[in-house]
Amino acid sequence: MNKIVNIAVVGLGQVGIYLLNELNTKKKDIELKTGKKINIVAVSARNVNKKRRFKINKRIFYKDPLKIFKEKHVDILFENIGLSDGISKKVVETALKNKIHVITPNKALISKHGDYLAKLAEDKEVNLEFEASVAGGIPILRTIKEGLATNKITKVYGILNGTSNYILSEMRDSKDSFANVLKKAQKLGYAEPGNPKLDLNGFDAFAKVRILSALAFNTKISKHKCLMEGIEKIELKDIEIANQLNLRIKLLGISEIINNQLFETVHPCLVSKNSYIGNVTGVMNAVILEGKPVGESILQGEGAGPGPTSSSLLSDLISILNGSIKKPFGISSNKRKSIKCYDVDHYKNSLYLRFEVKDKPGVLSKITNRLAKYKISVKRLIQTPDKKNNKATVVIITHKTNELNSKNCLSIFRKDKNILKYPTLIRIYN
Amino acid sequence: MNKIVNIAVVGLGQVGIYLLNELNTKKKDIELKTGKKINIVAVSARNVNKKRRFKINKRIFYKDPLKIFKEKHVDILFENIGLSDGISKKVVETALKNKIHVITPNKALISKHGDYLAKLAEDKEVNLEFEASVAGGIPILRTIKEGLATNKITKVYGILNGTSNYILSEMRDSKDSFANVLKKAQKLGYAEPGNPKLDLNGFDAFAKVRILSALAFNTKISKHKCLMEGIEKIELKDIEIANQLNLRIKLLGISEIINNQLFETVHPCLVSKNSYIGNVTGVMNAVILEGKPVGESILQGEGAGPGPTSSSLLSDLISILNGSIKKPFGISSNKRKSIKCYDVDHYKNSLYLRFEVKDKPGVLSKITNRLAKYKISVKRLIQTPDKKNNKATVVIITHKTNELNSKNCLSIFRKDKNILKYPTLIRIYN
Repeated sequence: MNKIVNIAVVGLGQVGIYLLNELNTKKKDIELKTGKKINIVAVSARNVNKKRRFKINKRIFYKDPLKIFKEKHVDILFENIGLSDGISKKVVETALKNKIHVITPNKALISKHGDYLAKLAEDKEVNLEFEASVAGGIPILRTIKEGLATNKITKVYGILNGTSNYILSEMRDSKDSFANVLKKAQKLGYAEPGNPKLDLNGFDAFAKVRILSALAFNTKISKHKCLMEGIEKIELKDIEIANQLNLRIKLLGISEIINNQLFETVHPCLVSKNSYIGNVTGVMNAVILEGKPVGESILQGEGAGPGPTSSSLLSDLISILNGSIKKPFGISSNKRKSIKCYDVDHYKNSLYLRFEVKDKPGVLSKITNRLAKYKISVKRLIQTPDKKNNKATVVIITHKTNELNSKNCLSIFRKDKNILKYPTLIRIYN
Repeated sequence: MNKIVNIAVVGLGQVGIYLLNELNTKKKDIELKTGKKINIVAVSARNVNKKRRFKINKRIFYKDPLKIFKEKHVDILFENIGLSDGISKKVVETALKNKIHVITPNKALISKHGDYLAKLAEDKEVNLEFEASVAGGIPILRTIKEGLATNKITKVYGILNGTSNYILSEMRDSKDSFANVLKKAQKLGYAEPGNPKLDLNGFDAFAKVRILSALAFNTKISKHKCLMEGIEKIELKDIEIANQLNLRIKLLGISEIINNQLFETVHPCLVSKNSYIGNVTGVMNAVILEGKPVGESILQGEGAGPGPTSSSLLSDLISILNGSIKKPFGISSNKRKSIKCYDVDHYKNSLYLRFEVKDKPGVLSKITNRLAKYKISVKRLIQTPDKKNNKATVVIITHKTNELNSKNCLSIFRKDKNILKYPTLIRIYN
């Protein structure tokens, strides 16, 4: 690479504009650390005149990012548009084909097309870096690829969606409803104002789990969806009952190898109030790795926002400026293997079940009989009457049972008119 | 570098022999990740016949490590002897002069001669890597140099000595004395059997603080010793009183920039039972970084033992095999600046003071008058009589005061025959 390195920044939303400002203000620092002078030769967004936090140089502005490749010599391109397909994919693909290094925080793109794009980068002998796609400012991908390179990792899990973690923490602290806290999160910029669905239904965390799995286990990115649940069904009531039981609700993403099969999941979990993970609150992310010989490693940091994301984007830049060509997933694409998906029906957990029932004789025994029929044994049962409305809340903590069994057991309650809604199920972690 | 890379391992203690076994068993994995075949061409230790956990190949054994340089072509050398000077320094120096890359977990060597050796490595255009010198398996140095490369770090602190942390945790759990728990730690291999002093007096943690400072703040390794205290004076009594106050005692290493001056310290701290750091127990290490724009980042993992140490040594190996020549401290030696030392006299904390006194009228007022004279105000005072022995324990929690003031204030109690021992002082970390 030449001493002067040409850079293009495509996508000038919250992250893109913050990054651009960091690039402009840290030029000297980057030169100190790498010996290279960076030169921003092109920026691109849909709207040149949109109100932005930092000013942009309109003389290097492109409405069509693909035009940059025809008109400018670019060494490194940042893609911050954020789509899984469409123009995001096109820009990254074209850059790699033109032997331009690419840095992106786009987890949707990488979790869907990462294998293809990595292969393309390897063939063209350029770097494709995506540290910012998982856990914001936490350098977790670099830690797996480099810091713990020769460990045999058996499990990686954690809190991977800051929005969900903020909502769960804030519901507990403010005793406010899901809907109200979501509005607050949107106001604070923690959740998308338009469509926060991908954060709340587990999709965002699942994309990150897939990227983590591929790196931790040297496998192709999986296409399976073992089990994905978000926090949408969590009510304040569940959070308060959890609190009484010395538990907290956390949305965990989990990836592990069980019997040489890959098990990836995202779902709300009940964890002990005193556990490490139970105390990761607000928009914080945390990732826990179990490996040999290193043992358990924990990394915690801010999981979202333009600051932490830019920190990771710039670490990728420094890595490219300082280093040689690296494989995007740590090893050659042709050495990364496909792996079978673990059958989620065998996934075993203790369960928290909350039933809202009519306060009539026989209803409780119907529930307990049904559980008994499926050999799901009850560890704890708490019935709280709501006399005024002639209702009751029944919370049952079970011993361990598998998914197939619990699904079959609970299915009957969909049709029972004494059971006022389908029971809320939250798995108890470990 | 050629496809076949020759390696020498010098020092075959607990770490060296574990590393050698890992190198032998992970050859394929290393080739997969780097495309290089490693070939162990020399090993060295004082005694060829010592009983070891894994067998060594006696045909490549050298009693004198310096002979290796004359007889073998070596690309990468591991130094695991562990001295700050003497043969450790000689071996590393000779290797670098012969353009051999060096990997070492030796914090004593790096914290003392790191500047000189880094300069030498840069001049000879080889790598000097020492990830394993700080916090065992936690890839903290790589995280500062690469993962958080462009952040402005303002503070780095944490639990950096697993032995001390184990002893403090175990005293609390077992309610046993310092001396007994130390014996237990020695039996379990957590403390040196012969001379555990360097772990217990804060020296080991201080060496790590120095290495962290140099990397976090791009400075030369400091030669100052602002404030270094170990855990030797902590009694079970202090741990029990802390517990009553909802606090825990932790040995923290702290490095920060205050008014453009470097403040480095190691001392026992009282921290909240509910804080993150208060819950890092046993031989665990944890490092907390405060940086902009990334915010607060936490890394936790096993801090000692051959497994975690080897994990870091091998990550250095992968880095060298994959990468280009890197500056040992992230930036050129001639760009790293010396920095003034912050005057410890200005260091301010709330204090825990424990007095053991004769149970006589006037003793308490003498203490409180003395504190008042130095304007140290009392936040909380707990006097517990020991009628049988005509003694009392007085515990005082003060508001914030600086070191100079507290030192001057307490000095008088050395000569007072009603004060049975010089008061125990533990700083409260907030």
